[in-house]
Amino acid sequence: MTSKFQPRFRSDLPAPAKRWNGFPRYNFVGGHNDASEVPVDELIAAAGSVLAREGRTLAYYGLESGAQGYLPLRRLVSAQLIERAKMRVGEDDILLTSGSLQALDLVFEAFLEPGDTVIIEEACYGGTISRLQRLGVTYIGIEVDQDGMKTGQLAEVLGELAAKGQTPKLIYTIPTVQNPTGTVMSEARRIELLALAENYDLPIFEDDCYADLLWEGERPPSIRALEQQGADSGRVIYCGSFSKTVAPALRVGYLVADWPVLSRLLPLKTDAGSGALEQMVLAEYGAERFDGHVADLSAVLKEKAELMAASLAEQFGTQVEFTAPKGGIFMWVTFPEEVDTTSLAAAALEEGVEINPGVEWSVDPGYGRRRVRLCFGSATKQEISEGIARLADICHKHTGIPTRSGNVER
Amino acid sequence: MTSKFQPRFRSDLPAPAKRWNGFPRYNFVGGHNDASEVPVDELIAAAGSVLAREGRTLAYYGLESGAQGYLPLRRLVSAQLIERAKMRVGEDDILLTSGSLQALDLVFEAFLEPGDTVIIEEACYGGTISRLQRLGVTYIGIEVDQDGMKTGQLAEVLGELAAKGQTPKLIYTIPTVQNPTGTVMSEARRIELLALAENYDLPIFEDDCYADLLWEGERPPSIRALEQQGADSGRVIYCGSFSKTVAPALRVGYLVADWPVLSRLLPLKTDAGSGALEQMVLAEYGAERFDGHVADLSAVLKEKAELMAASLAEQFGTQVEFTAPKGGIFMWVTFPEEVDTTSLAAAALEEGVEINPGVEWSVDPGYGRRRVRLCFGSATKQEISEGIARLADICHKHTGIPTRSGNVER
Repeated sequence: MTSKFQPRFRSDLPAPAKRWNGFPRYNFVGGHNDASEVPVDELIAAAGSVLAREGRTLAYYGLESGAQGYLPLRRLVSAQLIERAKMRVGEDDILLTSGSLQALDLVFEAFLEPGDTVIIEEACYGGTISRLQRLGVTYIGIEVDQDGMKTGQLAEVLGELAAKGQTPKLIYTIPTVQNPTGTVMSEARRIELLALAENYDLPIFEDDCYADLLWEGERPPSIRALEQQGADSGRVIYCGSFSKTVAPALRVGYLVADWPVLSRLLPLKTDAGSGALEQMVLAEYGAERFDGHVADLSAVLKEKAELMAASLAEQFGTQVEFTAPKGGIFMWVTFPEEVDTTSLAAAALEEGVEINPGVEWSVDPGYGRRRVRLCFGSATKQEISEGIARLADICHKHTGIPTRSGNVER
Repeated sequence: MTSKFQPRFRSDLPAPAKRWNGFPRYNFVGGHNDASEVPVDELIAAAGSVLAREGRTLAYYGLESGAQGYLPLRRLVSAQLIERAKMRVGEDDILLTSGSLQALDLVFEAFLEPGDTVIIEEACYGGTISRLQRLGVTYIGIEVDQDGMKTGQLAEVLGELAAKGQTPKLIYTIPTVQNPTGTVMSEARRIELLALAENYDLPIFEDDCYADLLWEGERPPSIRALEQQGADSGRVIYCGSFSKTVAPALRVGYLVADWPVLSRLLPLKTDAGSGALEQMVLAEYGAERFDGHVADLSAVLKEKAELMAASLAEQFGTQVEFTAPKGGIFMWVTFPEEVDTTSLAAAALEEGVEINPGVEWSVDPGYGRRRVRLCFGSATKQEISEGIARLADICHKHTGIPTRSGNVER
């Protein structure tokens, strides 16, 4: 279609995509994971056995499970969440989605209209921020510390909004292995958050897609698990994913919500079901193998996180700050005031090092501009140490920082 | 979430979903296919070999192929379209989607705003009509005969709109095995349609998702294939699917368009890629096995179509009218004036026979109200003959029609 057709497009479309030209040499962005940890043999075995037994059901949309997704996988998710997230949940409370991103799209589409207000964490998943921007929604950031979203600040913000007669539509939070800070909301904060949501009568959207990759400390009960049962329950909509644990390219996530919510989300899921083969293979792969795999993978990721931390310390000394993540695949790193990470990211990409500039992962650009998200899931250990050294070189060339690397003056 | 949360939802949501309670005994709706024809053994073999070779790439979003989808599958689609649809197309012109339904959503989202006008066929896929309704778009239906959309009527309608200063945003057509009529647009009509689109400078959205299941006559070149090359080319956006041919629950479709269009659609595809396992398995399954399978499947479907036609003739005599479909999985059946098919469908569902009432598949309710879409892809032969007999009983009970079945007065 020639350029003269451009006027036919909606006027509010995002900027056009660029052609994909392969991954950068040092890839510190995206939710990719460790290639050597993909449980290939087990997935082959699972595909073989489930297809031999049930392959003919592929002739039916939704297999024989309806629009909520493959029933054996919903049962697996339910069992996992009871065990891992301390949640009361049954197969009927689950909607399987094409990754947790489709879960985000469905919930945001059901609730949000232009001009609405949403509460999120000050540092927040870039894909959430870009979705809210496209929807024309105002988002307010609440600071995060080592115990997660600061509920004291949240109480203030909700009070101020109420004083102006405003009610947010949702509180969106990533409580467990928060993206990008890698922190975990304490159980006490979860209870305070719930109390505030009840007080102001707000739904909570709990995005727990990295929670299975926690390697430090005990996983707290999910916020949805902490709700009091009764007439007022069902305030929390929960989502999770297999993409972070089994394999990112498998697009299988899930939503947990009460039927009054699921019944409104289902008609928005206009894809006639998410990919059946992936759902079947994951269900067949099963709980036991999943638990063992996640334990192994988390150990590998912890080593990579420690290596990245050591590489940053070696290359940047005290000129960058970060807190070791408690799980997941990313670190949130603060540079000195002189470093604009958007410029740094552009310069680094030209030299084969890709990083997420902080402004794309922050509500307040002033907060984000000297921060960076660094992902360590897919890079090899050699790539991590080489890539961080390369990043230090590039940063030094452009900003004079770091002034020392190792024990050597630059 | 209790009912007091309902005010938090957008006010313009579709009606809530109902719980799924299994398929009806006689299932004559939906794009389901013949369970015995699912190539289970070949899919198992394909899964085993592709995962053994490339399984570790599941660690990367988009595998190693970028956002347009798994490169070997794009190459397979390209080769198929060159051969089957006479199209000039390369791997870079293709975007793999989660079924052709996601293709519809992406194109409609990119082009359409409330108040826009779209041209479609008078009898049209219900999912297209419901999408256009939700988008607040006006749709104008053009009649279909055995040669497809009547281009003479289209010329009149476009002329009338132009006289009022109105320009449609798109012409949407299902030219090959039209849904629901089962007709095929002739090559001459395709050329006339293109000329009209050029004359009024309109994009065409060619939905060819059933085209591979043509069993009667030669498949015409796609409309996109008939475009003249040059500065003005790229007017046609094309979509197809593997769901109708290999298995419905495999959610793999594809869009073909020039880069100025694909680059605007890609940012709207916010799912971080469609399911990789399904893409990998389909690519590995390959062109040769696909061709053989589709030939076998089409032969089975043709037999079922003939059986359904014979059953209708036996049960309803001359009181229903239909034209034998040239391919696909559905028939479009016209009842006498006395029969309101929406009431008939509701009554039939209560007795275990599900059919699509025509109003949901028609622009003009007056045209649709005595029509029905009957799908024969997934029902067994026994279910087809029993189910049509049951439908005749139900219809007779409610409307007095048919007055005779077989040679017997009712």
